[in-house]
Amino acid sequence: MGLETVARSRIVTLTTDFGTADPYVAAMKGVILTACPSASIVDISHGVPPQDVLSGAVVLAEAAAYFPAGTLHVVVVDPGVGTGRGILIARFGEQHFLFPDNGVITLIAQRLPMKAIFSVRNARYLPAREPSRTFHGRDVFAPVAGLVLNGLDISRLGPQPDTYKLLDVPPVRQEPDRLIGSVIYVDRFGNLVSNIRQSQVCGCFPAMERVRVYCGGTEIGPLVGAYGFAEEGQPLALFNSMGAMEIAVNKGNAREVLGLDVGAEVIVADVK
Amino acid sequence: MGLETVARSRIVTLTTDFGTADPYVAAMKGVILTACPSASIVDISHGVPPQDVLSGAVVLAEAAAYFPAGTLHVVVVDPGVGTGRGILIARFGEQHFLFPDNGVITLIAQRLPMKAIFSVRNARYLPAREPSRTFHGRDVFAPVAGLVLNGLDISRLGPQPDTYKLLDVPPVRQEPDRLIGSVIYVDRFGNLVSNIRQSQVCGCFPAMERVRVYCGGTEIGPLVGAYGFAEEGQPLALFNSMGAMEIAVNKGNAREVLGLDVGAEVIVADVK
Amino acid sequence: MGLETVARSRIVTLTTDFGTADPYVAAMKGVILTACPSASIVDISHGVPPQDVLSGAVVLAEAAAYFPAGTLHVVVVDPGVGTGRGILIARFGEQHFLFPDNGVITLIAQRLPMKAIFSVRNARYLPAREPSRTFHGRDVFAPVAGLVLNGLDISRLGPQPDTYKLLDVPPVRQEPDRLIGSVIYVDRFGNLVSNIRQSQVCGCFPAMERVRVYCGGTEIGPLVGAYGFAEEGQPLALFNSMGAMEIAVNKGNAREVLGLDVGAEVIVADVK
Repeated sequence: MGLETVARSRIVTLTTDFGTADPYVAAMKGVILTACPSASIVDISHGVPPQDVLSGAVVLAEAAAYFPAGTLHVVVVDPGVGTGRGILIARFGEQHFLFPDNGVITLIAQRLPMKAIFSVRNARYLPAREPSRTFHGRDVFAPVAGLVLNGLDISRLGPQPDTYKLLDVPPVRQEPDRLIGSVIYVDRFGNLVSNIRQSQVCGCFPAMERVRVYCGGTEIGPLVGAYGFAEEGQPLALFNSMGAMEIAVNKGNAREVLGLDVGAEVIVADVK
Repeated sequence: MGLETVARSRIVTLTTDFGTADPYVAAMKGVILTACPSASIVDISHGVPPQDVLSGAVVLAEAAAYFPAGTLHVVVVDPGVGTGRGILIARFGEQHFLFPDNGVITLIAQRLPMKAIFSVRNARYLPAREPSRTFHGRDVFAPVAGLVLNGLDISRLGPQPDTYKLLDVPPVRQEPDRLIGSVIYVDRFGNLVSNIRQSQVCGCFPAMERVRVYCGGTEIGPLVGAYGFAEEGQPLALFNSMGAMEIAVNKGNAREVLGLDVGAEVIVADVK
Repeated sequence: MGLETVARSRIVTLTTDFGTADPYVAAMKGVILTACPSASIVDISHGVPPQDVLSGAVVLAEAAAYFPAGTLHVVVVDPGVGTGRGILIARFGEQHFLFPDNGVITLIAQRLPMKAIFSVRNARYLPAREPSRTFHGRDVFAPVAGLVLNGLDISRLGPQPDTYKLLDVPPVRQEPDRLIGSVIYVDRFGNLVSNIRQSQVCGCFPAMERVRVYCGGTEIGPLVGAYGFAEEGQPLALFNSMGAMEIAVNKGNAREVLGLDVGAEVIVADVK
């Protein structure tokens, strides 16, 4: 994989499940700014549900690709902190990612080509002092981010791992005339985001007007182009801005109206 | 209106109803930073109640005026996304505003002189690729913001519109010896913010000590100077930091204590 | 105490109970950026429970120390706004703090050496216009922060105060073979943070494996090294990343599981 030559930037993003009320995120920012005062720190989200690695993977994947080449994305959704889980640094596409080896990189790995990956364990670049066992975000991730922002080549941080963990994201099944997937994320508006991609639907169903969508056993209807194309309060199905099949309610909350959540079955069928 | 000559800055603010848990705000920031890596992005609020254009208008108006001349304020409280609503860019006072044409600019337009306004529809400056129908924040607003931060004169973005939408904010009625308004915003402390302005009250009632305030049919009392001038847990009326008549509870939550919300009637009366 | 010679930075942090939905924080940022466009503003937290000075003190103390020397920390958890309480500016360690004189500096003062402290009341450096009585954050703290970021020596802002307020944080009592403290903070994960410090426990109990922890009358068990060392859903006690004794539940919420909150008694005992 050789040396990293991606254009450097001073932009670093943070994705955590720390929330913003507690001092944890700010402590990380303080450590990063102490190492690299010119860093430009951008929050992707600190509202990932606590220890929900799949939600963290979705949030990261939907935001990271829009950042400038050379951005460093630091991800601390890390239920295994203090146990033996490893920390990895990788380049996917033109972006760098520093993350715990728990599968939170899964959707990035599905969408962007992996260019390089290293285990973060070269003692020369890790804090000399034993890190706290509960807050590697501050004691390991932030200092390593500071080094990378200051120009350290990521290949120096450790050896290439033999393997790394990927989540077993429920796959989309294809049957004659239908696709069967599931809800993998619910956003703040209560929109139910599935793992069925626009490209899959377009590939399977030549006549989009004959498509009907079902969610959790309820018929939602045909695909529409925007929220405003359904009556207020009525459920609808569309391809959302992430390119995913989404079940929503116009000016309402689909999670509440339909009583459905992550895991609900989503079916796209051709009604000939 | 001629060419824009306002001092430029690299400061851009964001006001949305996206929340901060989902990846939407970060995707916008990534697009802006890709276009203009030196942009200084400041969040005004992402906690506007979903699709609540009036609350968005209040939040924007109370914060925007404090920013340096030349700041670009991007507002995406946009229930009409994907339908035919227009996008506007305008200069009010010394500030620039990029916003959907749905009335979210109403309070700014009431308080700052309009210097220029243009419809954002010059195809030369819009993304060549069809934007997603649900996320113009990322696909239209953010790229246009990047162009303006990089120096594009806002008059290049399109023609002057014939008109633009303003909200029908409930007006304050003046009767003999009293003003009748309503609650238009409730903040996180439960303070009930009315549309009655300090300047109106001072203009109508020469003897401030004879003024009594009523909210939702309950007598609140005379005007006081600060929260601490009422007993703990007791309601009070004052002019808040925004220059608006506000009903609060000292060390408490007026919305909960009084059981009132947006729309509640507020009366200021002279008790001779 | 003499003139301040601490290294200057353009980094300023904000710690408030304003939340992030309302326009208050953004108005403060606008005022700071108008005074000092190159300021680098970092949020410590705006989620301090409303008017909860003790929580504000904990959040500030756990984050501030990680910032670069010369950082200015602005704290506006200020239930006394508009009454006669003073405003102070001080240097503790290598950091500057601008805060209301209500005890919010208590934990910083316990942990960092005080190098200088001044009352902010020199009329020459205060806004000529009468500040609003409810929003000194925008009308006093932010303009003063702008002056300091631009290089004003903090000793110019006013005289040294005779005294300043400290909170009566419930002290840890030491009895034969045990320490008795209490929960002083609960974080977003529901972890119960006590005022018992790791250094106290290590000083009192030579044999750590004989230590048992009790919280609110319930035996939690021995000290463990990380969340992952307890069964899922089981309570545990550990020293957290702040160096404090904390009661947590592995992959769960200790506040909910144990039904305990700020004020609950925490006992560390030696079971010989």
